[in-house]
Amino acid sequence: MRKAYKAHILFTREKDHFDVVENGCIAVENGCVVGIASSPEALGCAASDVIDFGDRLLIPAMNDVHVHAPQYRNLGIAMDLELLPWLANYTFPEEARYADLAYAERMYRRFVYDLWRNGTMRCAAFATVHLEATRLLMDLFHEAGMGALVGKVNMDRDCPEALRETLVEAEEACAALVQAYGNDPLVRPIMTPRFIPSCTPALLHLCGELAQLHGLPVQSHLSENTGEIELVRSLEPDSRNYADAYNRYGLFGQTPTIMAHCVWSAGEEMELMRQNDILVAHCPTSNFNLSSGMAPIRAFLDAGIRVGLGSDISGGHTLSIFRTMVYAIQASKMHYQRDRNRSFLTLSEAFWLATKSGGSVFGRVGSFEPGYEFDALVIDDSDLNHDDYPLLQRLERFIYLGDDRHIVHRFCRGREITL
Amino acid sequence: MRKAYKAHILFTREKDHFDVVENGCIAVENGCVVGIASSPEALGCAASDVIDFGDRLLIPAMNDVHVHAPQYRNLGIAMDLELLPWLANYTFPEEARYADLAYAERMYRRFVYDLWRNGTMRCAAFATVHLEATRLLMDLFHEAGMGALVGKVNMDRDCPEALRETLVEAEEACAALVQAYGNDPLVRPIMTPRFIPSCTPALLHLCGELAQLHGLPVQSHLSENTGEIELVRSLEPDSRNYADAYNRYGLFGQTPTIMAHCVWSAGEEMELMRQNDILVAHCPTSNFNLSSGMAPIRAFLDAGIRVGLGSDISGGHTLSIFRTMVYAIQASKMHYQRDRNRSFLTLSEAFWLATKSGGSVFGRVGSFEPGYEFDALVIDDSDLNHDDYPLLQRLERFIYLGDDRHIVHRFCRGREITL
Repeated sequence: MRKAYKAHILFTREKDHFDVVENGCIAVENGCVVGIASSPEALGCAASDVIDFGDRLLIPAMNDVHVHAPQYRNLGIAMDLELLPWLANYTFPEEARYADLAYAERMYRRFVYDLWRNGTMRCAAFATVHLEATRLLMDLFHEAGMGALVGKVNMDRDCPEALRETLVEAEEACAALVQAYGNDPLVRPIMTPRFIPSCTPALLHLCGELAQLHGLPVQSHLSENTGEIELVRSLEPDSRNYADAYNRYGLFGQTPTIMAHCVWSAGEEMELMRQNDILVAHCPTSNFNLSSGMAPIRAFLDAGIRVGLGSDISGGHTLSIFRTMVYAIQASKMHYQRDRNRSFLTLSEAFWLATKSGGSVFGRVGSFEPGYEFDALVIDDSDLNHDDYPLLQRLERFIYLGDDRHIVHRFCRGREITL
Repeated sequence: MRKAYKAHILFTREKDHFDVVENGCIAVENGCVVGIASSPEALGCAASDVIDFGDRLLIPAMNDVHVHAPQYRNLGIAMDLELLPWLANYTFPEEARYADLAYAERMYRRFVYDLWRNGTMRCAAFATVHLEATRLLMDLFHEAGMGALVGKVNMDRDCPEALRETLVEAEEACAALVQAYGNDPLVRPIMTPRFIPSCTPALLHLCGELAQLHGLPVQSHLSENTGEIELVRSLEPDSRNYADAYNRYGLFGQTPTIMAHCVWSAGEEMELMRQNDILVAHCPTSNFNLSSGMAPIRAFLDAGIRVGLGSDISGGHTLSIFRTMVYAIQASKMHYQRDRNRSFLTLSEAFWLATKSGGSVFGRVGSFEPGYEFDALVIDDSDLNHDDYPLLQRLERFIYLGDDRHIVHRFCRGREITL
């Protein structure tokens, strides 16, 4: 049945500007956008099929293309630690707890709720090495009606014994998740070798084969910090760079691939990212918190490389992709401060990264163009709009100043999600 | 009358660690802290004089040492603009509106409320060039019971005609504000030459004289961005550096002085800051948003220079000093990323900047040591504390994840402030 939603509609068909329809109507059928017009009649909707949100803003929902679900408990703690003690003392011990399904359910329910609360309707999530807990996380997304690419983490090197898997376990777990969720419209498995230092060559090779065998997308980490890059160079001496190492294992665009961070990617590595149509998961909050550096997003965009935004909790300290947009702009301004020839990200560009660009890994997601799945948020900014700001400033103020209190309705694939 | 407040008490007597008293009592008399103990009896309080906050956190209130009150309407807009068009098209036209007292009252009431909401009980604020509106802002702080150093801005150069004053007007306005608020325990005037480019040498000279004549503190901007520094060099060719220019006018520590930003201060300028006991107002959100750069706070602390935190709205996009702490840590981590010999700011250091260090410009403010004015916040973090986090992690999570919803009581100088 066709429905129409009426509100002030703002989205980014292209990165360079917002499409703004004041008091517009958006028609939705079978979960997808049919069109936008100034009246429901023009969209073939009866007045009785219109849901009127009044003076509120209607925008695409957020997409988080890099998030570690089992690090939810560690959100906002241990920020005074550096990467290695943080991994050893907080991240790995916490992930080991997900062998306990009761614990996993308690935390994963909170995690899914908090994504929802922050307006994120789709995410690409790392789970842990545990099949059952990963399956549980997929069930929770399915139950909520939210979209997710969920990765059972693969690792068998340089990690605690409790988090190490065998090749047989990796293969069987992959098959089990494909069987359970291979054909779900919203929740799907994604191959997730943690990163090169955590995986033996045999496991990386297997991951590449499984991704191609099952037609699964891939996610991992790339060039996050300088020490890691040195380590990969020593582990993979025959590769031209970090990206090339993944590429040689069939894990770099042979199927749709998300690479998180890419803080230090340049030159040949960037060229390979472009050629293989990699989606960069830009995680500026994490890159600040872990002293990683500031990824050169303007250079990626200029080179035609795809980019989305990731919260990367608990390296990042917030699940809000709105707040992540602000950080993305700020990081680009620090590049700009040093090199005035490289312009900083504008608000429309940051918004586009979080919606249409990042959403592309989930299908036709992140825009209100016809045929796009209707993932949307209704924003009640009445307390921020205390002096008749124009619509674009209202959106900007919500992004810079607002929070979950302003998000009053959330839709995923045409269905209102209430948790 | 002596009262005692019971809760988990956390504060920073020194920057390197938190003082933590689980289920402690803090006794307050005549607005000041008498002492902390594990029971009210040990503090000379009857059980009936105890206000028990249960499992909540009790921390010093926030101090914002650099904020532009009349830029409140512009919070979170025009962030895609660079400094000069931002000043010309947004900042100056908005400040000009404060000639209208009705407009000033509407906006200033919101501003004071929003400071309160965010847990900031003291601030050093720039108003506008208008005497009446500045006086009104002081009245609003007085009425609220919150502490403020409020500066009627001085400027007479390179600004719109409507914001330009004469020397006579500057002198008379200063006298009027001293007469009204010269002896108030919480609200006081502060000399506020906007910055060197906005003031003729005659006005700067007068500001220095007035500060010393009336014993007023001083606030201004220093070395915020590289273009500004070049401009000051050309305007003040006989000065050794930007700081020295202020110093020659008697505006650099001859009375207690706050200098905002200091992003590019180094060498001789840093040495003059140290010698003259300048308080740096570190405004990392603004420095990111305006592409200014990242101030070298670790270098300042190592050199023994005082530092507090400023929101600097609307260059900054949030009045939350908690969020500003996070940005201060992150900016320092970007320095650390480039130079591992310069350690990043820890949580206790950022907290100390926002409380005891920044609070020092308001008197004995920002700590719970005996004799300090009791400025405090009660934090209900029950929704963040879903898994029995230790007290320090609870505070860290509140700082990284929390917001005004978690602040359930606010005290300034011993009095609970409710707006």
